[in-house]
Amino acid sequence: MDAESLRLAERLLPSTYIKQASDADISRRTKIHQLLEKRKCPDEGWDDQTIEGLLIDLAKMDSNNFPANCGVGEREARIYSGLVAQRHYRLGHGIGRSGDISEVQPKAAGSSLLNKLTNAMVLDLIRRIGIRGTQACLVMPMATGMTVMMTLLSLRDSRPQAKYVLWPRIDQKSCLKSISTAGFEVVVVENVLEGDEIRTDVPALKEKVTSLGAENVAAVLTTTSCFAPRGVDRLEEVAKICKEHNIPHVVNNAYGIQSTKCLHHIQQAGRVGRVDAFIQSTDKNFLVPVGGAVVAGFDAHFIEHIGKMYPGRASVSPVLDLFITLLSMGVQGYTALMTQRSQHMEHLRLRMGEVATNLNLKLLQTKNNPISIGLALPEGAGTELGSQLFLRGVSGVRVVTPDQVKVVAGVTLKGWGAHHPNYPHAYLTAAAALGMTRTDVDTFMARLEKCLKKMSNKLKETRADVNEDGLENQ
Amino acid sequence: MDAESLRLAERLLPSTYIKQASDADISRRTKIHQLLEKRKCPDEGWDDQTIEGLLIDLAKMDSNNFPANCGVGEREARIYSGLVAQRHYRLGHGIGRSGDISEVQPKAAGSSLLNKLTNAMVLDLIRRIGIRGTQACLVMPMATGMTVMMTLLSLRDSRPQAKYVLWPRIDQKSCLKSISTAGFEVVVVENVLEGDEIRTDVPALKEKVTSLGAENVAAVLTTTSCFAPRGVDRLEEVAKICKEHNIPHVVNNAYGIQSTKCLHHIQQAGRVGRVDAFIQSTDKNFLVPVGGAVVAGFDAHFIEHIGKMYPGRASVSPVLDLFITLLSMGVQGYTALMTQRSQHMEHLRLRMGEVATNLNLKLLQTKNNPISIGLALPEGAGTELGSQLFLRGVSGVRVVTPDQVKVVAGVTLKGWGAHHPNYPHAYLTAAAALGMTRTDVDTFMARLEKCLKKMSNKLKETRADVNEDGLENQ
Amino acid sequence: MDAESLRLAERLLPSTYIKQASDADISRRTKIHQLLEKRKCPDEGWDDQTIEGLLIDLAKMDSNNFPANCGVGEREARIYSGLVAQRHYRLGHGIGRSGDISEVQPKAAGSSLLNKLTNAMVLDLIRRIGIRGTQACLVMPMATGMTVMMTLLSLRDSRPQAKYVLWPRIDQKSCLKSISTAGFEVVVVENVLEGDEIRTDVPALKEKVTSLGAENVAAVLTTTSCFAPRGVDRLEEVAKICKEHNIPHVVNNAYGIQSTKCLHHIQQAGRVGRVDAFIQSTDKNFLVPVGGAVVAGFDAHFIEHIGKMYPGRASVSPVLDLFITLLSMGVQGYTALMTQRSQHMEHLRLRMGEVATNLNLKLLQTKNNPISIGLALPEGAGTELGSQLFLRGVSGVRVVTPDQVKVVAGVTLKGWGAHHPNYPHAYLTAAAALGMTRTDVDTFMARLEKCLKKMSNKLKETRADVNEDGLENQ
Amino acid sequence: MDAESLRLAERLLPSTYIKQASDADISRRTKIHQLLEKRKCPDEGWDDQTIEGLLIDLAKMDSNNFPANCGVGEREARIYSGLVAQRHYRLGHGIGRSGDISEVQPKAAGSSLLNKLTNAMVLDLIRRIGIRGTQACLVMPMATGMTVMMTLLSLRDSRPQAKYVLWPRIDQKSCLKSISTAGFEVVVVENVLEGDEIRTDVPALKEKVTSLGAENVAAVLTTTSCFAPRGVDRLEEVAKICKEHNIPHVVNNAYGIQSTKCLHHIQQAGRVGRVDAFIQSTDKNFLVPVGGAVVAGFDAHFIEHIGKMYPGRASVSPVLDLFITLLSMGVQGYTALMTQRSQHMEHLRLRMGEVATNLNLKLLQTKNNPISIGLALPEGAGTELGSQLFLRGVSGVRVVTPDQVKVVAGVTLKGWGAHHPNYPHAYLTAAAALGMTRTDVDTFMARLEKCLKKMSNKLKETRADVNEDGLENQ
Repeated sequence: MDAESLRLAERLLPSTYIKQASDADISRRTKIHQLLEKRKCPDEGWDDQTIEGLLIDLAKMDSNNFPANCGVGEREARIYSGLVAQRHYRLGHGIGRSGDISEVQPKAAGSSLLNKLTNAMVLDLIRRIGIRGTQACLVMPMATGMTVMMTLLSLRDSRPQAKYVLWPRIDQKSCLKSISTAGFEVVVVENVLEGDEIRTDVPALKEKVTSLGAENVAAVLTTTSCFAPRGVDRLEEVAKICKEHNIPHVVNNAYGIQSTKCLHHIQQAGRVGRVDAFIQSTDKNFLVPVGGAVVAGFDAHFIEHIGKMYPGRASVSPVLDLFITLLSMGVQGYTALMTQRSQHMEHLRLRMGEVATNLNLKLLQTKNNPISIGLALPEGAGTELGSQLFLRGVSGVRVVTPDQVKVVAGVTLKGWGAHHPNYPHAYLTAAAALGMTRTDVDTFMARLEKCLKKMSNKLKETRADVNEDGLENQ
Repeated sequence: MDAESLRLAERLLPSTYIKQASDADISRRTKIHQLLEKRKCPDEGWDDQTIEGLLIDLAKMDSNNFPANCGVGEREARIYSGLVAQRHYRLGHGIGRSGDISEVQPKAAGSSLLNKLTNAMVLDLIRRIGIRGTQACLVMPMATGMTVMMTLLSLRDSRPQAKYVLWPRIDQKSCLKSISTAGFEVVVVENVLEGDEIRTDVPALKEKVTSLGAENVAAVLTTTSCFAPRGVDRLEEVAKICKEHNIPHVVNNAYGIQSTKCLHHIQQAGRVGRVDAFIQSTDKNFLVPVGGAVVAGFDAHFIEHIGKMYPGRASVSPVLDLFITLLSMGVQGYTALMTQRSQHMEHLRLRMGEVATNLNLKLLQTKNNPISIGLALPEGAGTELGSQLFLRGVSGVRVVTPDQVKVVAGVTLKGWGAHHPNYPHAYLTAAAALGMTRTDVDTFMARLEKCLKKMSNKLKETRADVNEDGLENQ
Repeated sequence: MDAESLRLAERLLPSTYIKQASDADISRRTKIHQLLEKRKCPDEGWDDQTIEGLLIDLAKMDSNNFPANCGVGEREARIYSGLVAQRHYRLGHGIGRSGDISEVQPKAAGSSLLNKLTNAMVLDLIRRIGIRGTQACLVMPMATGMTVMMTLLSLRDSRPQAKYVLWPRIDQKSCLKSISTAGFEVVVVENVLEGDEIRTDVPALKEKVTSLGAENVAAVLTTTSCFAPRGVDRLEEVAKICKEHNIPHVVNNAYGIQSTKCLHHIQQAGRVGRVDAFIQSTDKNFLVPVGGAVVAGFDAHFIEHIGKMYPGRASVSPVLDLFITLLSMGVQGYTALMTQRSQHMEHLRLRMGEVATNLNLKLLQTKNNPISIGLALPEGAGTELGSQLFLRGVSGVRVVTPDQVKVVAGVTLKGWGAHHPNYPHAYLTAAAALGMTRTDVDTFMARLEKCLKKMSNKLKETRADVNEDGLENQ
Repeated sequence: MDAESLRLAERLLPSTYIKQASDADISRRTKIHQLLEKRKCPDEGWDDQTIEGLLIDLAKMDSNNFPANCGVGEREARIYSGLVAQRHYRLGHGIGRSGDISEVQPKAAGSSLLNKLTNAMVLDLIRRIGIRGTQACLVMPMATGMTVMMTLLSLRDSRPQAKYVLWPRIDQKSCLKSISTAGFEVVVVENVLEGDEIRTDVPALKEKVTSLGAENVAAVLTTTSCFAPRGVDRLEEVAKICKEHNIPHVVNNAYGIQSTKCLHHIQQAGRVGRVDAFIQSTDKNFLVPVGGAVVAGFDAHFIEHIGKMYPGRASVSPVLDLFITLLSMGVQGYTALMTQRSQHMEHLRLRMGEVATNLNLKLLQTKNNPISIGLALPEGAGTELGSQLFLRGVSGVRVVTPDQVKVVAGVTLKGWGAHHPNYPHAYLTAAAALGMTRTDVDTFMARLEKCLKKMSNKLKETRADVNEDGLENQ
């Protein structure tokens, strides 16, 4: 209620009640003023009522919601279905203009404000939880793979002749496709084995730079978050090479925002070497539906440049989800989730260790993977175990058998799934990702143990077939 | 209620009431069965209750909503905020897999089904309203510009050496950027003037093919829907050239689905020549929020290929909006909207003609533009008129002065805004787009007439400055 | 957005966009200010966005939504389920205090304001559409029967010895029960037949007053809206008798707000005689879910007295429905519905007349019933016709056979259903009530004609049984 | 999705995914089948998705939602506003028929089923948490005061001559008004002081029965939950007297469902004596918005009789809130809340004891009040303390000064607020009610201690005035 409304309401209610309601509202208003003024993610999360009130107010600022608006353009944000209008809080114009995805839309002041505030909150959060040097970020209304592709495309005009992207191998299709669809040639840098763990082969990468010629390398694309037994890439060393040879360096930090270790490596790499952009998914890191990614970096100009390369407008929907979620969580809510995740990871490691000991299996030692963990499996156990777990409602576990070969985007990869051509074990991996509960860990372990025991006899004799695409059980 | 529930409810209610409720539900179920069986856009729109019931049922099929699910992957569609979960009907997994945007997700049977049904309904609708030969389509969760870019990128591997995109000029930035960001070189084919109207210069285009070498041309990018006085491109002739020279032909049909004329030209072009893909925005053609586009074509393989080029998953949100809207409209609802639009267009043309006569202005004759119409303005009237209308709550009107020069994506365009280097008039355009009402037309005309009269004296003496970006008044 | 927020937003957006958004919002604010200042039903309906924004603002004024509230009472409006909180816009405290249902709650300034505004809007609307002399009204969060009962109970303390309620017969159970549950003795005044029509027997009523002694009569309870062939009661004549003998007069105007005729009779009765209160349902008159009623009158003190008799708090839900609906309709929307209803009534009368002529049946002539109409049926047709129509999805039609006897609340009524002990025909009635469409009329007539024709042969031989409760077919 | 839909979906998705989704849905279906079959409150709460799905299915069973329905009655549950329709899940017909509030509506099978299931769940819950002998209950869509009134009215026809209601004093207005509005004469039975505690004067009550004549006593109305220092009434002894003298006994158990002590006393009273009905609020006991009450008893016939006395239909809204909430909580959720409440009560008692000790104040010893607790205040502290706490956002605390006199419903009560004409202390009370958190207790105590300290000097000199209505600070 505005001041005039409250004044008028005094004819209907005792002024003390109005006064008290007004006082109580000040704390809400103050939160909104601070958001607009400081453009930081609030420390403490907001209640849904405050968020919804703000969203309605923002929507009223868009021309399609102006009571007297008369639209004679081809794009007037008319919404046919009431269900659709409502689920978007009547925001219809999307974000960006034809010239720039981060540009303000004259017809949509509210959507534009929402977009700017969301970008600002994400930037603030990334800085506060670990990558202090971040200078800019952009919430992209498309998932990680597409955002990596857009980032690579944005490098092209400054290095028109460069056609190679150096890629320390990570067995995930989107990532490869983001390079090839962007029109670059993938140069695979196979990883090395250190104990159970798979790590970046830095000398091999350096050698590739030399042999191809730095000027022909469009970028190096490294990865932080990944499935064990692969560890986070040796970001700092790669960043140094990139700096030395003046090669762009893009980091696929898909679900690494949730891990202090990943954040730390990026911050350090940016400090000691070159990191042009690091990209992360919004769904995995911020618990929103799939559909957005954040591209961030240490050089605001390059991030802005990516925005300017984007042709046309885009959906506000992933931005809206993030806006609501960040306001609802606050920095405290987010860091609490990070802490819990870390505890669940330790719990998962402990429990998997116990199961390994009990069943005489090997827990893979991968200290450079902060999110997932692997358990070596008896020969032949893989596929059947995967489907057993699937039938028991376990989703997300990956079972890898080391003898797969796969061609993705024209690149042949031996040992597909294992990030290495000759990994010595079949194994399964499980992750302790953001939002997981302790109950999830315990339920998984119970189901896993049951399956493993049940199979232990069979396993000795049977060697299961592995289906062609069969890395992830679902 | 399932049959068992109804049976159990008979202990609580007279069976005749249960029977009647059950009978009434059959018509709803039948609609759903037909949708699943025929995969066609329903003739008649559905009520919201039926749509919501189906959405809840689909969401229940996704693993994040399984009561006993235990997720140990990195991507489990956990949603933090209740507001966010609810606005997406608890669909969290997005669409597509890392390998293909139209692939089914094992963790998300419901989302996958929703995606397939939406694609099928759009295909059916496009066929039934005019482009009968369409073989496949793909709803892309990104706007038109990005979808044009993805389509161009998808052409690259079959023509790796081709670097030019021939582009009959259309003064709209996204379109240019979709070519340049994709890494191609834009070859502008300037238009010719035919009376008031701006049309494709087919001989010039043919000459460019010859001079550059057909094998070096990645694609021709034509446009249907555009602002008057530019007309729809001469699609059939261009398509014939493309067929003859084996050059891919992409049609930017941004808001052309709403116009039978645009649909007709595409259908004909596909019949007599080559059209690889035609791309249209979901917001402008289907009255949903900005954020999606449909790429369709006469060759299912190529459309599938675009899907396979897409790196990673994507937001289900634009697909969901379309799903709801198509079910809500039905084919009858959509064609009714088309008919109304066409009537409003005639009304707009008539009323603008009257104003032109009254004020001694020239109505631009552009019979090849079925959606927008232009009115020549007295010299110097442009900018001020634009801001006058803006202040009066008119959105979407464009005021063009023919002396602008603009550099977009490295391409210099003289007469920016007019689609022609030397258009002889300043003018304004207004469009009768889908969802517009007769009241919108009348309100616009009243405000326009008022502004024009008010300015008529001033106009003789003043020559207004034109702001740098000033094509669209908002 | 408050002024300070807009000011702060100027650092993020061009001030002209902010200005335009702010200007557009003024029209919304002005509407709210006028509502608070004038406390009248708006002429023109509001859009949902404005209504929802206001509801959120009102909810913020209730203490359960104060961010820093700390509740140590037994009633703190805590809401367990998010679904429940949301559907009530987080209003939890209900309306009223233990002392008075219309009293302001200190803990719930917002709910109290909403309640006052709703009452004021209903009062304004009732005055403007016909009962100009209305002095006060109260939206009661319970249906018509309960509200009649509360009104009768409120009469008791001023006439402690009076134990009879005179009741011109209307065959509807709630009405009778509202008298007997209130502890009064029902005195039935049988109606008289005038042609086909059933009307109040005024001399008989006058005689009852004399024989029982006016001082022993607690009230006369008349009825306006009812099923044909009963007409609206002779309100003016009854009101004169009541005035003359100083007897309270309560009018059951259940669904009469929708009819100018009913409104007119109440207004006249209040002018020439005595009407203490007239009571109407919110669901039938205002198209909200069942659950509220409005008690209104020409003496504000008596209406307030009813409020003070109410023990305890009450649900805000029916009030909230009415608040939303009245804002959404506006006076114009409501009167448009009234006009349509009246047209549909004429259409129904015409079409039923045609069917009567075609099938050689008698259309009952009941010029004093503005809402429903009856068609005499061939002997024995009744019950079967009822169930035939029921099976064909016709709801609300009543089939009456004149030989029923029913005991309700201890009162024996001969000819139950017909409002008369010896009505000469079996008949069916259908109503043209608010919100009905012309399609409803046509569909009904088509289904009715089909059933009647089908039965015409059978009817000659069969005499259908009539079920015990069988007035309304559903 | 029904079986046929799943079968058809197999053409679009791999059957294993369909199978898994279908399996997952079985647990939901099973829950619904069990609810319909056993009609018990589920042990474990349901997720919102399952609840919403069921609500949509129930709504589809009501005739206003039948796709082909054609309504020609006066009450067809047409809903004007989409906002209103949605917030009621399109349930419009309310509950009950003119004959009986618990009767099934032919037009509304879904609403009727919802009503029956809610009543059954409440009955089951009441039995399981303590009053095992309960035979029937009825959720009434009106608050406690009205429900007490309806219960008293329902007693009248079996005891037409009885005009007195005996009332062990409880200083709460609704309760008194429920007697007087029902038309009975209140006979106050003043309480006695036992130490700090105020208890029922059983001999005085017995004496009243004798002096008035048992046959003239319509009922005794006792109270369980109340503000300290009043304790729960001596239910067992009163029940024995009622049984012996054949007098109806109604228990106002307003917020006693949340307390095992209150439940125990009712169960015992029903076992050893006579309890006709016990009535409780839905908002205070089940954390829903104000607006419903539950009347329950040991004799199903009497409870049904109350239902039959209700004139007309009623809002389904309070029933719907309870339906959602009970499904969402489950018995486990409810008992967990009870346990927490009990712990918070102990915490509150402990903390108030500490403050009393520190400030040299007296904590009132009231072992028979399980929900609230009192702290004696220095003379003159009352009113100012109340407003100080109000200003600090403490709601619900009551400050009582023992010298008030109040006339309610014609009854003069000395010492109003204290339930006793001469209570020896001024005091404040605070309650630990269901849904309170430990943080609430701590925040309250901190604010209270601050206020008390601040006032300690002032208090010696000032004697504050007490406003007329000033028992509850808000």
